[in-house]
Amino acid sequence: MLQLTLSGILSFEGIYVREYPQENRLNLSLHSFVTGYHTGASQSENALYISRRCQKANHFSSTVDYRFLRLPPLPLGLFPVEAMAAAEEGFRPLEEESLVEYIKSTPALLVQLGEQLEGLAIKEVGDGNLNFVYIVTSPGGSFVIKQVQYTGLIIEQSTYCFVVQTCIKLMALPYIRCIGTSWPMTKERAYFEMLALKEHGRLCPNHVPEVYHFDRPMSLIAMRYLKPPHIILRKGLIAGIEYPLLAQHMSDFMARTLFFTSLLYHSTLEHRKAVAEFCGNVELCRLTEQVVFSDPYKVAQYNHWTSPYLDHDAEAIRDDDILKIEVAGLKFCERAQALIHGDLHTGSVMVTNDSTQVIDPEFAFYGPMGFDIGAFLGNLILAFFSQDGHANKDNDREAYKRWILKMLEETWNLFHQKFVALWNENFDGHGEAYLADIFNKPELQLLAQKKYMTDLFHDSIGFGAAKMIRRIVGVAHVEDFESIADGSQRALCERRALDCAKKLLKERRKFESISQVISVIEEISAR
Amino acid sequence: MLQLTLSGILSFEGIYVREYPQENRLNLSLHSFVTGYHTGASQSENALYISRRCQKANHFSSTVDYRFLRLPPLPLGLFPVEAMAAAEEGFRPLEEESLVEYIKSTPALLVQLGEQLEGLAIKEVGDGNLNFVYIVTSPGGSFVIKQVQYTGLIIEQSTYCFVVQTCIKLMALPYIRCIGTSWPMTKERAYFEMLALKEHGRLCPNHVPEVYHFDRPMSLIAMRYLKPPHIILRKGLIAGIEYPLLAQHMSDFMARTLFFTSLLYHSTLEHRKAVAEFCGNVELCRLTEQVVFSDPYKVAQYNHWTSPYLDHDAEAIRDDDILKIEVAGLKFCERAQALIHGDLHTGSVMVTNDSTQVIDPEFAFYGPMGFDIGAFLGNLILAFFSQDGHANKDNDREAYKRWILKMLEETWNLFHQKFVALWNENFDGHGEAYLADIFNKPELQLLAQKKYMTDLFHDSIGFGAAKMIRRIVGVAHVEDFESIADGSQRALCERRALDCAKKLLKERRKFESISQVISVIEEISAR
Repeated sequence: MLQLTLSGILSFEGIYVREYPQENRLNLSLHSFVTGYHTGASQSENALYISRRCQKANHFSSTVDYRFLRLPPLPLGLFPVEAMAAAEEGFRPLEEESLVEYIKSTPALLVQLGEQLEGLAIKEVGDGNLNFVYIVTSPGGSFVIKQVQYTGLIIEQSTYCFVVQTCIKLMALPYIRCIGTSWPMTKERAYFEMLALKEHGRLCPNHVPEVYHFDRPMSLIAMRYLKPPHIILRKGLIAGIEYPLLAQHMSDFMARTLFFTSLLYHSTLEHRKAVAEFCGNVELCRLTEQVVFSDPYKVAQYNHWTSPYLDHDAEAIRDDDILKIEVAGLKFCERAQALIHGDLHTGSVMVTNDSTQVIDPEFAFYGPMGFDIGAFLGNLILAFFSQDGHANKDNDREAYKRWILKMLEETWNLFHQKFVALWNENFDGHGEAYLADIFNKPELQLLAQKKYMTDLFHDSIGFGAAKMIRRIVGVAHVEDFESIADGSQRALCERRALDCAKKLLKERRKFESISQVISVIEEISAR
Repeated sequence: MLQLTLSGILSFEGIYVREYPQENRLNLSLHSFVTGYHTGASQSENALYISRRCQKANHFSSTVDYRFLRLPPLPLGLFPVEAMAAAEEGFRPLEEESLVEYIKSTPALLVQLGEQLEGLAIKEVGDGNLNFVYIVTSPGGSFVIKQVQYTGLIIEQSTYCFVVQTCIKLMALPYIRCIGTSWPMTKERAYFEMLALKEHGRLCPNHVPEVYHFDRPMSLIAMRYLKPPHIILRKGLIAGIEYPLLAQHMSDFMARTLFFTSLLYHSTLEHRKAVAEFCGNVELCRLTEQVVFSDPYKVAQYNHWTSPYLDHDAEAIRDDDILKIEVAGLKFCERAQALIHGDLHTGSVMVTNDSTQVIDPEFAFYGPMGFDIGAFLGNLILAFFSQDGHANKDNDREAYKRWILKMLEETWNLFHQKFVALWNENFDGHGEAYLADIFNKPELQLLAQKKYMTDLFHDSIGFGAAKMIRRIVGVAHVEDFESIADGSQRALCERRALDCAKKLLKERRKFESISQVISVIEEISAR
């Protein structure tokens, strides 16, 4: 028997669902906020794909075959339906042609091209799932345009729910458990990304691309084009490339963005105002909670791992009481410590030999600092454990593994040093967590800082470990491992990372320095 | 040289300050949002008092004598100026006469009087500082009207700042350090009080007066009249009256309001939405932080204590490094655990032999649960230590002291029991902190609950102790001690409470049960 739970979308007028149980079919009709569709199997045989590229229409009607809803769990076992939207006033999805018109009518963008439209070139580079990303160049300048793609209708297999949802990264977040999300909120993720980019850029201009223009109704951001040879750090780590300034730059980014948005610098008044604003970004925060802190620890439809090799390991995670208690104890959702990037893995960093740029802060909100630091460090550790899978007879990757560990050590130590230096410089500022009138002796300041930094270190290890675990047995994996073709070899690398993460998470409060963390990594690596 | 810091009020058009240093005078002109004034010394010789009862005017100009600004620190060393407002559209301060008209035109209020206006009686009972409170009765019914009193202009002695501020409880919060507050936000505290009353009332209707009517532009709440013999619990504790159901009722109130607004019951989505809304109540939250967590630990203008007896004790607090680290570690402002009352001392509870009603949640926001629990338990401990000062030859208060300790023990133990029971009843609900799919074995649930409740217990002890300390060496004291006329006797009682609080705060993580806390109290009491 098919159950339809429509609570989440009843607010969207014009949705009509009709069931034909005898024929094993559902009919969905969506009016007025759908611009067009075609059905097909463009992503996989299991996907119903409705492209916004089709001609616009204000009526959509499609039939979903029950078979689509009765598939075994798969990595992409969900049914992403790119819908489309424009229900919101003022939103038009731009394509290359309309983008030219948009640029022409937007002075802030014309300026970036030196007013030169002759020789204008537009290239779409987005992954086509979450955003459309266009590189715009002309002889006079360049920029990148990022526009929210209204990935619309998600049909969840397990409960037969229909969810209108716009914020799904197909690879990273193939489904949403929650019913009850709302359209305007998710549409706003471009707003939060812009806010975070601007705030990060203000605090750390060397490592964040400038925002040139933001169009809220259009959910569109124009920002600096990070030209070649910038590549995604994760790809560099897979290729075995060393970036000499990486630890220096990332520690800078983290120390500045986290310190200056914490109560060590903020007044309570500023802090709460900012916390309230970013509470609006709840959808993405919630997804983080689910995919990082919940799903890996239970049977969840879209969890997957290198099977059959890691079947037992995944089960052991789901049976590990201590691990579950420790993960819950991280209290991701209750702690408004600082404005965090929210997704600071090695795929959110673009690098060259002398440049490091942090992008994609669409998950930003006020949360625990350790979540950002841990995300970066944890992904470096994943990169470390994946190296054996990329070794070959020309390059055993041993030197590169040592370099990664050096980065790990330097990133934390430099972060610690810079964060404390910022604290000292601002000790008698308007930050209200440790007032200079109260912490009025050098030795007391030192004591307070030592306790604060130790707690932050333990948090970072805990969050980093949680991020590692979810990348191995959760829904979204990392290319570091996925690009290892041989399953048994991949599983070997992943198991070591998993064992390391479990130990780090459970014993995090025992660690006094990053070198002790590195000893654990080395020990597990040598097994 | 006089320094004026006007950053906070520049947004209020029409404020004009002129300095006449030769004449030792300041001239303040406030236009358009001031309804009237008179100057006088109604509260004390030191107070400039501008009554809203004067005739309305849209211009105010007054001269503040420098002498007013150069007084020695006093418990009431501030200069409350009741101003008056109506800058906000729709606000009219009601007086008895205009209140009758208001009632006549408000169906929700007429209903409460059974439409009977004959025999209508109105009695003002507010303290005249923060709110006007009217008891409205007629043969057909009754209610209470509470309207925000626009206590307007606060002149801070130490920095010669002018702050327009509406939320000052004269006795509790005689000044604001912060410059930069804004009028509309503070005006909204009636809104937050109403929100919290309604939410608490929904969750625990037996112990919260119903809200009959709310008028946002008027900052006015109409609610159930808690008829005599209801009195403020604190007064009952001073009088030595036993309330047999107190622990039962208060544990009920705390268990229900805290559980149902936590992530144990809330989905993340609901939680963040509520957190964001209550972030608007930042002003009062900030004041709490200052007067509870900062001022007692530093030299602050309005700190006072039973001098000279406690001079050394107060200094010892300001020199106690471990205490300062522990207080900062409570992280009051970073933790959005549940909707807390925010000011749950024994003055916010009205009682009879068989009724317990929690009022005045104007400080409500999403914060640490332990702050509410600790406020109540800490104020019971203060009541305990004050009893020796109320003993006389007819009543040594020893039996009453034992009753208070019994209440302390029962309140925590019943709270623990009820909170865990609610958790068990809702274990597979939509709360997202401990999903039933993850905590999927009885022994694992038990383990998770044990850890959670232990952390909450330690939090409660810590916050309770901090609340005790601030009531002895901070700006706002409690009648339990203040009503002890003899200074040396009062100091003796207060010192014991202070010693107890310090021990509880520093060693809170060692306590495993409330009976251990009681042993500490008894031991100190026997010294």
